[in-house]
Parts: sequence; C-alpha cells; structure tokens
Amino acid sequence: MAAEVTTAQLIEKHRPTLDQALETIRSRAYWSPHPEHPKAYGENAAADGLAAFEALRGKRFELDQPGTDDWAGEEVSPYGPELGISYPHPDVAVLLPAMRAALPVWRDAGPEARAAVCLEILARISARTHEFAQAVMHTSGQAFMMAFQAGGPHAQDRGLEAVAYAYAEQVRTPERAPWSKPQGKRDPLELTKTFTPVPRGVALLIGCNTFPTWNGYPGLFASLATGNPVLVKPHPRAVLPLALTVKVAREVLEEAGFPADLVCLAVDKPGEGLAKTLAVRPEVRVIDYTGSTAFGDWLETHARQAQVFTEKAGVNTVVIESTDNYKGMLSNLAFSLSLYSGQMCTTPQNLLIPRDGIATDAGPKAYDEVVSDLADAVSGLLGDDARANALLGALVNPQVKERIEAAPGLGEVALASREVVHPEFPGATVRTPVIVKMDGGKPDAEAAYLSECFGPVSFAVAVDSAADAVDLLRRTVREKGAMTVGAYTTSAEVEQLIEEACLEECAQLSLNLTGGVYVNQTAAFSDFHGSGGNPAANAALCDDAFVANRFRTVEVRREA
Amino acid sequence: MAAEVTTAQLIEKHRPTLDQALETIRSRAYWSPHPEHPKAYGENAAADGLAAFEALRGKRFELDQPGTDDWAGEEVSPYGPELGISYPHPDVAVLLPAMRAALPVWRDAGPEARAAVCLEILARISARTHEFAQAVMHTSGQAFMMAFQAGGPHAQDRGLEAVAYAYAEQVRTPERAPWSKPQGKRDPLELTKTFTPVPRGVALLIGCNTFPTWNGYPGLFASLATGNPVLVKPHPRAVLPLALTVKVAREVLEEAGFPADLVCLAVDKPGEGLAKTLAVRPEVRVIDYTGSTAFGDWLETHARQAQVFTEKAGVNTVVIESTDNYKGMLSNLAFSLSLYSGQMCTTPQNLLIPRDGIATDAGPKAYDEVVSDLADAVSGLLGDDARANALLGALVNPQVKERIEAAPGLGEVALASREVVHPEFPGATVRTPVIVKMDGGKPDAEAAYLSECFGPVSFAVAVDSAADAVDLLRRTVREKGAMTVGAYTTSAEVEQLIEEACLEECAQLSLNLTGGVYVNQTAAFSDFHGSGGNPAANAALCDDAFVANRFRTVEVRREA
Repeated sequence: MAAEVTTAQLIEKHRPTLDQALETIRSRAYWSPHPEHPKAYGENAAADGLAAFEALRGKRFELDQPGTDDWAGEEVSPYGPELGISYPHPDVAVLLPAMRAALPVWRDAGPEARAAVCLEILARISARTHEFAQAVMHTSGQAFMMAFQAGGPHAQDRGLEAVAYAYAEQVRTPERAPWSKPQGKRDPLELTKTFTPVPRGVALLIGCNTFPTWNGYPGLFASLATGNPVLVKPHPRAVLPLALTVKVAREVLEEAGFPADLVCLAVDKPGEGLAKTLAVRPEVRVIDYTGSTAFGDWLETHARQAQVFTEKAGVNTVVIESTDNYKGMLSNLAFSLSLYSGQMCTTPQNLLIPRDGIATDAGPKAYDEVVSDLADAVSGLLGDDARANALLGALVNPQVKERIEAAPGLGEVALASREVVHPEFPGATVRTPVIVKMDGGKPDAEAAYLSECFGPVSFAVAVDSAADAVDLLRRTVREKGAMTVGAYTTSAEVEQLIEEACLEECAQLSLNLTGGVYVNQTAAFSDFHGSGGNPAANAALCDDAFVANRFRTVEVRREA
Repeated sequence: MAAEVTTAQLIEKHRPTLDQALETIRSRAYWSPHPEHPKAYGENAAADGLAAFEALRGKRFELDQPGTDDWAGEEVSPYGPELGISYPHPDVAVLLPAMRAALPVWRDAGPEARAAVCLEILARISARTHEFAQAVMHTSGQAFMMAFQAGGPHAQDRGLEAVAYAYAEQVRTPERAPWSKPQGKRDPLELTKTFTPVPRGVALLIGCNTFPTWNGYPGLFASLATGNPVLVKPHPRAVLPLALTVKVAREVLEEAGFPADLVCLAVDKPGEGLAKTLAVRPEVRVIDYTGSTAFGDWLETHARQAQVFTEKAGVNTVVIESTDNYKGMLSNLAFSLSLYSGQMCTTPQNLLIPRDGIATDAGPKAYDEVVSDLADAVSGLLGDDARANALLGALVNPQVKERIEAAPGLGEVALASREVVHPEFPGATVRTPVIVKMDGGKPDAEAAYLSECFGPVSFAVAVDSAADAVDLLRRTVREKGAMTVGAYTTSAEVEQLIEEACLEECAQLSLNLTGGVYVNQTAAFSDFHGSGGNPAANAALCDDAFVANRFRTVEVRREA
C-alpha cells in the first residue's frame, strides 16, 4: 500500500513531543501536551463532538477487519439511553492469524517510527476529545467534565507516557555494535553485532467499564510501541471509547503504510466470555487487564503463554491521626469520596480514626465529631443538585446501587446516601456517598471493611491508636491490596510509621492533602498509578517494568 | 554494629568500575575488569587457591546463620574424590523471617551503596578466583581452565553486569521531585514527591550443577543490588562455589555495617526437595532458577507469589548451508561440540545439513562428507589425551554417560565417543562427543532430535533444502526452545531467511563463526545469554527486564 504520510514525516512532527515526554518521565515534573479545558479545543468542538457521538448511535460501527462473523453490542448509557451501536464480532481463528501476519513489517519499522505513529494516533484522538468525552460519559457514567478530562487529555497523557517508556527501553541497546577482544600478541577477536527489539506477539487489551481509555491506553500504547499488534476487547458496557480508538489507530496505520490490522477490535456477544477464549490463544503473548480480582487471578493463573499485567480490586485506606488544617482535610476528603460516586479504583474506602479522637488546629475532635464533620462536608459539597450531578456522575451498574442500599446494614450510618435527579437525563441513577461507622475491634465489622465495597460507600473505622491504625493499614495492604493510601498527621513519628508501612507493603502514599490535589488522582509523567507490589495490581502505570518485557532483544553476531 | 568500612568508602573505591560497566552495557563493547589468565592473579595464587580448597575438604563449612538445625552435604567431585564438606541446613521458619527482618536497612541504604557493596563482594571473590576455580572444577566437572575462566572472571563479569543493570534501573526515577501544575489565575498546585525503590522481599537463587557461579551470579547480584535479601539454594552436587560466595558476601556485608543475613545459604538433605518448600514460602518474592524444564515449569506454575526467572532446556541448532571457509567452520564446530563435553546449555545439538550437500570454498561437499569431515575435525581436536582432558572435563553426572551410550541406538554413528583417561584423576569419566546421523524426514528420528539430549551427543540431521532447514529451525525454537542458534551460509537470501526465523521465534543467532568465537560462548556486557522469548528461558542474561521487576517504586507526595 502507498503511504499517504511517511514515517519520516511523522517522526519530524512528533519527535519534540516524544523528547519532552522522555525528559518528563525522568524529572517527574508537571507537563501535558493535551489541554484540560474543553474550550481549548475550539469554538465548535463541543457541538461537533456531541454531533459526532450522536451520529454513531443506532448504527453499525464499521471497521473492515478480517474474520468478522457477526455483529454485537448492547451498550446502554448509565444516563439512560441505549446507544444502539453494533460492532464487529470476530472469528478468532481468522482474526488472530491476520494480526500475527501484520507483525513483521511493524517490527522492522523500528522503535522511533513506531513511537511516531503512536503519537500521531494520540494526536488524532486528542483532536476528537469532545467526541470521546461523550463516548466515555455514556458508557462509564462519569459526569461530562470528568469524562472529558480523565477520558480525554489525562488518558492521552497516560498513553503518551507509555510510548515514551517503551521507546526509551527499546533504544537502550544500540542497533549495532562492534566488539573487539584483545588476544595478547595475536589478532583480536572481532565481531559485529546487531540488536533488534522484537515484539512478543499479539497483545490483548481487556478494557474496563469505568475508565475505558484511561486504564486502556497505557497497555495499548505500550504494546503497540514495542511492536506487538493489539487486539482490543472492551468491557461489554464500555465499547465505544475503545472502538473509536481502534478506528483512529487503523486509519493512522494505513495512512502511514502499515497494515491496519495491527490494531483490531473484538466485541463479545452476551454471555460469550470472549476474553477467556482470547486470553489463552497461542498468538496472544501480552495481556493488559483492569477489573475484578477474580478474573485477574484467573488470567494470571491460566494465560501462562502471555505476560499478564493486571489491575484488580483493593481496599484503599486513609489514616486520620491529626491535622493542622481540619477544614482543608475535611473538604479534601469530601471531594475524594464524592468524585464519580466513589467508583474509582483509587477512591478511599476505609478512614481509620482513633476512637479517642484527633488533634487539629480547631482543637481536639472526638471520633464521632470527625465523622459527623466529614459527613457535613460531603453534604455541603453535594448540597446543590447541579454541583452534585457535575461531581457524582451516574452509577455505572446496578450492583453499585445495591451496595449503597446494603451499606446501612453494616453499621451505624453517619451519612445517608440521597438520590439526586439529573435535569438532563432523568433516567440516570445519581447517588451521594454513604459513610458507615465501624468498630475496628469487632470481627464482623472487619469482614465488611476488609472487603472492597466498590462505589460511594466508605467506612469510618474506629481504631485504638495511631499504632493500631498503622497495623490495620499494613494488614489491609498486604492482604487486600491498595491502589492508594492517604494519611493526615502532624506527628513526625506517626508520619514515619506510616511511610515505613507503605515502603514495606508497597503502597503509594499521599500525605496531608488539604488543597486541590486528591488522593484518588494521579498525573501521568509524574505519579505512579498503583505500585505493582501489593495485591491490588501486579504493575504500575507506568514504569520501566511495565514495558521492558513486552519485547525481547534478538542479537545477531558475525565475524567482522 | 560498627562498620569497618563505610559505604562512602566503598562507593569511592568502586564507582569508576560501576561507571565503566554502565557505559559498556550501552555500548556493548568488549570490557572486563576480571583477568582471564590464571597468571594474572600472582605467582602463588594457583598454589594458594588449591591449598585453600583442600583446607575446606572434610570439614564443616561454618556460616553462623540463624536457624541452622542440622548439617548436610554429599558432594563428590566428578573427578572422583568426595569433598566431604557439610553445610548448614536451615529451619526455614527461623531463617526466612530473619532474612526478611534484615531488609529495611538494606533498602534504606539506597541503590548506590548497594551497588558498591555488591562490587566489593565481587572484588573479594575475584581475588580468590583460584580457590573458586577448584571449587567449580570439582563440582561441575569442568576442566581447570574452563572452571577458572567461566567460573571465575566470566561469572564475576555477569554478576557485575547485573549490578549495573540493577543500579541503572533504580536511579532512573529521581529520589525527589517538585511538581507544580499551573491553575490559570489561581496559585499553582504544588507537591513535593519522593520516590523510593523498594525490594520485593526475599529472593531465592536455585543453583545448577554445571555453572554454579556463572548461572547463579546474575540473579544473586540483580536481587541483592535491588534490595532483596538473597537465599542461595545450590544444586546438591555443586554447593561449594555458592557456599564460598555466600561466605564472602556475608563478610563484606558485616564489615560494611549491614546484617550478614542479607545473604544466606540453604543446603538440603538427600531427597528433601527443599527448593519446592522454599519456592512457595510467602517471604520469597523473587526466584532465579537454572535447570530442568520440568522443575522450571513447576516453579512458574506454583510459585505465584514470586517473580520467577527460569533458564530451562532447549534444542540448540546450527544450520549448515554453505561456507567460504570450510576448514574454519569445521574446526569452530568441533570446538563447540567438545567444550565441557557438550554439557553447556548453549552447546549445539542439531546440525541441519541439506541431504544434497553444501557449497564450500573447497568445492561441493555431500552430506556424508560434511558429517565425516566434522567427525574428523573433532577426532583431530581431541586426538591428544592431554588436550582432550583440557577441553572436555569430566561428565557431570551418570545420566550424561547413559545418554552417550544410548546414542548409537538412535541412528548411524558418524563419530563414536571414546573414553579418555585423566592422568591426575583416574576416577574421572571423560568422554569425547558422539555424532549420530539422522534423517530429518523420519518421524522416529524427529522424536529423538527434537528432545534435548544434554551432553556430548549431536545429531547431523539431513534436510531436504535450506528452506526445509529453516522450517525445522523455526519449529525447534518455537516448540523446544533454544539458547543459541548458529548458521553457516554464503547466500544472502538464506541468511535473510534464517535471520527472519530468529527474529520471529526469538533466538540469539551466531552467523558464520570460523575463528576463535564460538556459538556456545557469550560475553557479559555485550552478548545476551538466551532471549527470554522462546521456551528455553523466560529471561535473558542480562537486560533491563531481568532487573526492572525485582523492585517497585513507592511514591510519597506531600503538599509543598
């Protein structure tokens, strides 16, 4: 096929962005080439994005992939409307070999060309951020602004970060090296060596419902940038954002003269369990997965032919021991508990508070007082329905609602959840968080708060002391895993205990956040998402280990 | 404890060596700080080394480890003599927690101090290379010169290489970074972030019989340099080289003010299967293993709490299609087949030769002619008993001898194995290689040559054509794995086919070697040992992927 754009042109266009990303993953400074503000995308972008989204509804999503044997799709927006889009369903025995056949030319293109093509894909996605925002909103239930930012620029940042890591890792060994070993008086031994990064095979991305792009892009772009064709298997309730991604990737690949089949989509029929079939296929050598612990464990156990990267469930914990900014702490925590109805893998679940109370800049506060002040802070934050809708979004599935409704049975309710009406989408289920008091010493309470209760349910766990809180934190991370840990303390000693616990149990820690940074948000290029060292995830987004084993280096040596 | 040497002193002493190693793993040039020539170690070094070795025999090898509940050891030199050394046998329930308890101070020392301590350990080992050579010779059966070089400087090089990779990987993320995100007209969001590389836990090294130090040092030093305490479980027949290593490591650690228990030894009793017990202990989070495919697969399947790095069996292949240096090719191959009686994981097993013969600078050669010329080259190389003993060494275990004796039953013998008497050690079993002709088209032959036949047994497999050879090469690597692939061809087209097969199946390729570099030897800092991408091994020695997942990075962020 004739390329419409050469890889040299793409390299010239994107090299400065790649270089900046390479610099930033080492400095860990703030940077993003993807604007966060919706208005930055042009005057008509919002209307155009909405129109583009609406134009997709009720139709087939054509992709021109090999081996399409049927059409599947049953997405219903958490805001109410059915999307009515059907997607290609694959004959795996046709699609996977076709993808595998596309590998050599992509491998031979080399790391820089692959990075440039990936950056062009991200640039095209960025230009359509408003359309993606609608797609993310109406599959995840995120409120528009969050769907826009987390599903758009922040996801694109994480994709770019993965490309930078992948590129850096592949070029560390030179393409070619002379080698000359002295032999005393005899001639030296001389070899010429070439080193080629080779992909492992087809990579499978198994997407999640809540953050289809944000959690999907790191694996997708890490695999593609290291030369692996990528098959995208979205969550059945969140297909569209990844289907659009696949479509853009195929367009760019084809324009650049590469086989479009390097990126394909696989959508399953109801109850088919296509992910299980795909995960153990011999062609599939890399898998990225975000979702339940049960299926993550299944993948790690059964997909032995593949490198498996999983993000699973965890029990995120905040230790509240003391603070010099009580008001700031309460408002920071209230926001963290409310954002996207607590449906983030990073949302705090357990708030560990000494039963004798805490010291604050507003005087000592009893356990009950802290909990009720936090409940008030949440109520205040979400008192206005418009603001509540803008922060909470809709519940992603009926199980979250069931958990909210079951929460009062677990303990004394400190804050009851209320229903919020969405003015634009009356079909949406919007609920404010529930906070339940728990006695940390009671075994039946422990069974509840030591399980992940995904959604806007938090437990205010009364503990005996700071030391007791740290012990419980340790046990929680070790046994249940955690994507995030937060802590509030003015004591250097307690801070040190908490930090040591996080180093030992391998958890990412946010200390004394009282302003506009929240424990549940991480920034690409600077923050690691997860540690890869506790049961919540076996990898971090994004580090060298996330990319280094997606390819291998083949050496050919010849006498010089 | 009071340190006799500070880490600052060790850093000052070893930083130049570390820097040179860091530079060389990127340039892939020739370099080694460890002299290959026995005479470079001083006039009395050989005698002193031998005396030191002899002084160890017939005694307890004291290590002062916690939890020693018994003494074990039954090493018999492949050259005949019993070593008579007994080593500490661990009460695992005492030893592992003690090792885990030593972790925090080692983690807190940081990457540079850990690297410096590792380099001091290597320097002390290097100074005792003659003693190690005796220990390697009398456990592996390697001839002295090979035990000296491969067990000494080459193993030390691989250890140093692992330290360099580990250090580089840990310092890629800064210890500390400011982060400032603009907020339009409002104040920027400002955080201070710290990043700490944290080890995964206790690392287990399961040693092999043939190359206890060479195959053991990469994992041992990669784990130790990334902060993991290392428990060394040697092969029961090759304990001494690793016991000496543990002893040196403990001495250096203690002198530098660290707990000696960061490196411990675990020797099992006959039939105990201690490796299985250790491999699934919760404290053990990293495992390095070299040995049989069966146990490697067992580890990968069952030691799910650990990162598992395995080097297993493979079927190494050489394609012989044409050459412009027939004599050089024959002598190069003859050496490769003979060295250490073919008991290297890198020794070629299958020689694929077109049944219509090959083109050479000495005219066309029929299949039979090539095989008999190769047989003659091996016979010539090993005709002199002294030279044969110096190259072959002793058979490492009785199973190798059984395989030699079974080989004539597999096909027509082109070269029969002969017994060589060792003048110094009449108890040694020294055998020259056997070459068996095989018809590549026959299914019963295929069953034989597609299994690893470890030892000095090679198969000259007649194939239909160069294309047929490449097909068989592909299948062999894909299904059985290969540590090495060799090829001889003057055809650019055939070379391209072979190279493509190696890129696709992920195998390291040596092309047209006719001089003093052999397909079965790799040089640290420059050559990768294995690819980690075919069934012979899931990791390469040494690359970034070998070290990147031995630690995780914990981030702590605070408002600035």
